[in-house]
Amino acid sequence: MSVMKKLINDPLKVADELMDGLVEAYNGECRAEGTRSIIKNDIPDGKVALLVGGGAGHEPIYHGLVGRNLADGAACGDIFAAPPPDIVFEATEAVDKGKGVLYLYGNYAGDVMNFDIGAELADDEDIEVRTVLIWDDVCSAPPTEKKNRRGIAGLVPIVKLAGAASQGAGSLDELEATAKKAVLQTRSVGVSMAPGSIPATGKPTFDIDEDKIGLGMGIHGEPGVGDIPMTSADDLTPQMLDLILKDFDEDDEVEALKEGDEIVFFVNSLGATTMMECLICLRKAKEYFNEKGIKIYDVMVGPMVTCQEMAGISFSVTRLDDELKPLWDMPCQSVCYSKMEGHYGG
Amino acid sequence: MSVMKKLINDPLKVADELMDGLVEAYNGECRAEGTRSIIKNDIPDGKVALLVGGGAGHEPIYHGLVGRNLADGAACGDIFAAPPPDIVFEATEAVDKGKGVLYLYGNYAGDVMNFDIGAELADDEDIEVRTVLIWDDVCSAPPTEKKNRRGIAGLVPIVKLAGAASQGAGSLDELEATAKKAVLQTRSVGVSMAPGSIPATGKPTFDIDEDKIGLGMGIHGEPGVGDIPMTSADDLTPQMLDLILKDFDEDDEVEALKEGDEIVFFVNSLGATTMMECLICLRKAKEYFNEKGIKIYDVMVGPMVTCQEMAGISFSVTRLDDELKPLWDMPCQSVCYSKMEGHYGG
Repeated sequence: MSVMKKLINDPLKVADELMDGLVEAYNGECRAEGTRSIIKNDIPDGKVALLVGGGAGHEPIYHGLVGRNLADGAACGDIFAAPPPDIVFEATEAVDKGKGVLYLYGNYAGDVMNFDIGAELADDEDIEVRTVLIWDDVCSAPPTEKKNRRGIAGLVPIVKLAGAASQGAGSLDELEATAKKAVLQTRSVGVSMAPGSIPATGKPTFDIDEDKIGLGMGIHGEPGVGDIPMTSADDLTPQMLDLILKDFDEDDEVEALKEGDEIVFFVNSLGATTMMECLICLRKAKEYFNEKGIKIYDVMVGPMVTCQEMAGISFSVTRLDDELKPLWDMPCQSVCYSKMEGHYGG
Repeated sequence: MSVMKKLINDPLKVADELMDGLVEAYNGECRAEGTRSIIKNDIPDGKVALLVGGGAGHEPIYHGLVGRNLADGAACGDIFAAPPPDIVFEATEAVDKGKGVLYLYGNYAGDVMNFDIGAELADDEDIEVRTVLIWDDVCSAPPTEKKNRRGIAGLVPIVKLAGAASQGAGSLDELEATAKKAVLQTRSVGVSMAPGSIPATGKPTFDIDEDKIGLGMGIHGEPGVGDIPMTSADDLTPQMLDLILKDFDEDDEVEALKEGDEIVFFVNSLGATTMMECLICLRKAKEYFNEKGIKIYDVMVGPMVTCQEMAGISFSVTRLDDELKPLWDMPCQSVCYSKMEGHYGG
């Protein structure tokens, strides 16, 4: 598909224009702030604030996770680019209600650099900031090198849990601890079949052979485990889940995933991959978890962490405990993810 | 993309396997019934039942609209094919709790024929059935020939409202009347830029020139108003909305959409069209409605009525009144659409 076949206006203004549209999607509950931030209007005084953010082009994340019982605001970059420090700072000032701000975002070098500078600018204004990085992509580095891991679709359940925790958190310490736990208990593996296109040029975000599938490939086409022959849903699904379970097993910071554990299981489409395919993979994944005695507490499925019209899928597993379950059960609403109170099958 | 690049197993079994996955997505709250139906487990005795259905391949509709405060069950066909009468009947028997069953589905000849036979089979078993057809696609026939109109994305807000109404409906008459009102007040216009592919063959669902956009084209590639040159989001959006407003204006059965009216506005992606594009169009649509003094009560945005990886978008407008607003405000949850209580901007 050519660049002309995208329903846009000026290809260089898509990040700004989609943010305007995002504000309209919230229909008065959120506002545009400064250059390119989106902020909830009703953040209570004294609330510990939760700020997310990242590059545009991956909608409905990252900025679509602002909402009810979710993030208080988001700093938004240009297409596939980290938000600059001044945008991070404007968002930080806007969400701060005197109890400090937790930054919770995917671990990419540009984002880390810019959010860190934003935190320094905030410190100059006596706003306390903590940072929890999301590094759920187990194919991007071994468990001993989490600082080199990318954040992918696991960020949705992580932000959901942190957003719920932020509603009642007594301190920034408390919210930071819960967010860290959610990150530690969340692991993802993705695959890709075909690239998305860069809105400004129409060029593909990466190349892949017609008969290959990129196992562990990142959402921008970053290398993973390697290309494997294209295969069936039933063959691929256990391969991907094995990598997630192996990671829980090999990481000294976390217990192995074992019989009786309860998880949120998330099947994410990277864009053009259909719900049909997501559901067919979910069917196989449920068999896999049943065989291992791992209990699915709730399911998420759909295109939430995308890269334009990229074809691909990812699985994310979040292990819940007695602290995280009630946070999961809290209702939430946003452009990216909404749920009623409770959980399916409860 | 070749058929081999879809994450499926046997291409002839995708409809069955995705239904298995859909049941898993509900994690115990719904069950598979008979050949290819999905039914809620907790339908109370004496509830007026709501049954939806249609062909597979358009996920997350139609069967993804079963859920909390939504449909009680769905009869599911094969890919792009109406559910056969025996599946309609098995679903009808399963959802019936003694107060009758409302069939609410998109107006396609095959569906009408098979649901009608299903209703006859139900009548033989003394189950009362009524039918409300969804015909929101204003480009598929003039307002005087609604029986020739297709049902497209407007079915999501319509089923949402009917599902809410079914929770407290005292009789099948009452639910039928509310569903009819929701249909009458809902109008949609779609466009397409590129086809999806048929899972069993990999063949495209239709052809369209690289430099053209199909205005009013149906979700399977049915003809609409005609092909127009590919254009920008800001140029196309008012053209599409003009067609919707013209239809409200020209239809004798409904009042023109006017200043002060309150609507739910739904921007749907047909599949591969990104949330970025949906949001950019939403931005322009909001300007359009603001100029006309039409108030957006709530917004829906995302890929809910799809045709595989088809590129295209549709707008749906549902005018609310004092009966429909509280129904809209009710929370709901399903694989297709979930919301908390209330509405954005309320």
